[in-house]
Amino acid sequence: MIYLDNSATTYPKPLSVRRKMAQALEQFGANPGRGGFKMSLQTAQAVYDVRQKAARFFGAAGPECISFQPSCTQSLNIVIHSLKRGDHVLVTDLEHNAVLRPLKAMEAHGVSFTVVPVTPGDNDAAQSGGVIPIHAERDGIDYLCCAGHKGLYGPMGTGMLITKNGEKLESLIQGGTGTRALELDQPREMPEYLESGTQNVPGILALGAGMDFVRTNGEYMLREREMRHIRRVYEAFKNMPHVILYTAMPDTMYFVPVLGFNVRGMQSEEVGEVLAKRNIAVRCGLHCAPLVHRKMGTDGETPGGAVRVSPGAFTTDRDITELIRTVYSLRAESAARIVE
Amino acid sequence: MIYLDNSATTYPKPLSVRRKMAQALEQFGANPGRGGFKMSLQTAQAVYDVRQKAARFFGAAGPECISFQPSCTQSLNIVIHSLKRGDHVLVTDLEHNAVLRPLKAMEAHGVSFTVVPVTPGDNDAAQSGGVIPIHAERDGIDYLCCAGHKGLYGPMGTGMLITKNGEKLESLIQGGTGTRALELDQPREMPEYLESGTQNVPGILALGAGMDFVRTNGEYMLREREMRHIRRVYEAFKNMPHVILYTAMPDTMYFVPVLGFNVRGMQSEEVGEVLAKRNIAVRCGLHCAPLVHRKMGTDGETPGGAVRVSPGAFTTDRDITELIRTVYSLRAESAARIVE
Repeated sequence: MIYLDNSATTYPKPLSVRRKMAQALEQFGANPGRGGFKMSLQTAQAVYDVRQKAARFFGAAGPECISFQPSCTQSLNIVIHSLKRGDHVLVTDLEHNAVLRPLKAMEAHGVSFTVVPVTPGDNDAAQSGGVIPIHAERDGIDYLCCAGHKGLYGPMGTGMLITKNGEKLESLIQGGTGTRALELDQPREMPEYLESGTQNVPGILALGAGMDFVRTNGEYMLREREMRHIRRVYEAFKNMPHVILYTAMPDTMYFVPVLGFNVRGMQSEEVGEVLAKRNIAVRCGLHCAPLVHRKMGTDGETPGGAVRVSPGAFTTDRDITELIRTVYSLRAESAARIVE
Repeated sequence: MIYLDNSATTYPKPLSVRRKMAQALEQFGANPGRGGFKMSLQTAQAVYDVRQKAARFFGAAGPECISFQPSCTQSLNIVIHSLKRGDHVLVTDLEHNAVLRPLKAMEAHGVSFTVVPVTPGDNDAAQSGGVIPIHAERDGIDYLCCAGHKGLYGPMGTGMLITKNGEKLESLIQGGTGTRALELDQPREMPEYLESGTQNVPGILALGAGMDFVRTNGEYMLREREMRHIRRVYEAFKNMPHVILYTAMPDTMYFVPVLGFNVRGMQSEEVGEVLAKRNIAVRCGLHCAPLVHRKMGTDGETPGGAVRVSPGAFTTDRDITELIRTVYSLRAESAARIVE
């Protein structure tokens, strides 16, 4: 399979990530911080090591700034549900439903929001964690929400909320933290405050291996490689009159390595089907970011969203050649459709 | 290691669970329901299969009643945060902080609660899922919250919320569901309504293998075996004057296979340390259920909680013999402490 849907989740995962996940089930199988015997302490230490790694990776002040979450969506919800009556939020028109839907839900609690259009050069961290270098302290970031299963090469079901002052947030969920067990109020200490319940230990340890993979290969190097693939696709598609491109020439400085396109006269899903038959995996249709589609004019019946191409660390030049060749082969079909 | 902390999380996991987790990363690595190519559809189907399996396992009306959650704690929070101003809740004094702390947080929103004492014969589902047979429809259960990593032998980081009318709950978190991407309101369809963001696919598939393991071995058979271990410990400890037991003779009908004890004159943690040196893993101290400790009188300085023994599917008779022998060997230490 030629996998070009790395924006949805990176695939394959590095061997080290898969190995760490298996090892976690065998050697780090006790509930961390809930027992005093060796394997429980060892598991707690292994989770703490990933916390430290993440703090270094994102330039956070310390491991207590890192809270593990089941998804970027949950991290975003913690931040957005902490907004107070009367708060007003500015969001971009590139936002994902994981931002827009919680904000819409918070309207009932007196929070309002305005959508501002974005010009090329801005990004968000679900896609860019591990792709664009971020330094939480230096960049003055209060809350950084990121997915673990995309640019960080961890498994699905992992995410992080990186905070400067986590205890100022609402905890969203309350429960057992392994600390202050006799108190009915949720303990305010970070990161336990935001981590009630048993944590996803195999996921967290594998995410640690994913961060190692990114650091070893270099964020810049990985991105530069993926951007080279995207530029090649862009150059090729620009010369195909039957292809519609939605972005300007991708620029390593400001873009994440993702490209959206359509074939004239065809539904994005039809293009996806043709590619799927050639064993090329891309995302088509609507991508959980409704305002982006409105902006690009792809929210209507035709083309019904767009085809999204997103290479990853394991994408090869041959993969890209095959994609370009297949899309080129659609020119006759496209011409026939337009005449109809 | 003699692992007797299965109430915190079961260990080891069955080989089939570990294999499924590894397979998930290799063969079911695409984001389910977010792409139209083969591996994405295949992954979506695999997740759906586990949903069906869980519906059968718990006697729910259909797979749409099953929502996957990162923990039992999160499931409980969804239900408890759906309470409305003026609601009054009766809870038992056996409840875990995952029930008590969200209720305490909801007091600020006009919800009140009363704690009622429990007599032997009642249970809750974090510990009993996979241990005591539950049939959601027949037993008239509205919401069933369970952990995946305990009696169901799934990995840590998994849980389920099984509902009769899930759409009546508050979603707690909102975001991308892979459905109705152009709508800013959270789609009400179950189970997507309660499953925003990318799901923990490896965890869910491994949980499915865990449920298969329980079904193949038989819930009754597994429990009967564990109860036999517990009864043996109980009989032995009852005859040791230096051991304090907190429950009546365990009865297969009404008890989950867990036993709490202390050694006179010793802190529960000290007993845990002695056991840890003999490579016996138990839980000691406070177990995230403060009112239980108040009830048993174990919330003070001494004994500082209790030692909890919880066998699992892989516990052997020799493991239990070693536990009994080690606790017996503490009689002199106990006598010396009491004289002091």
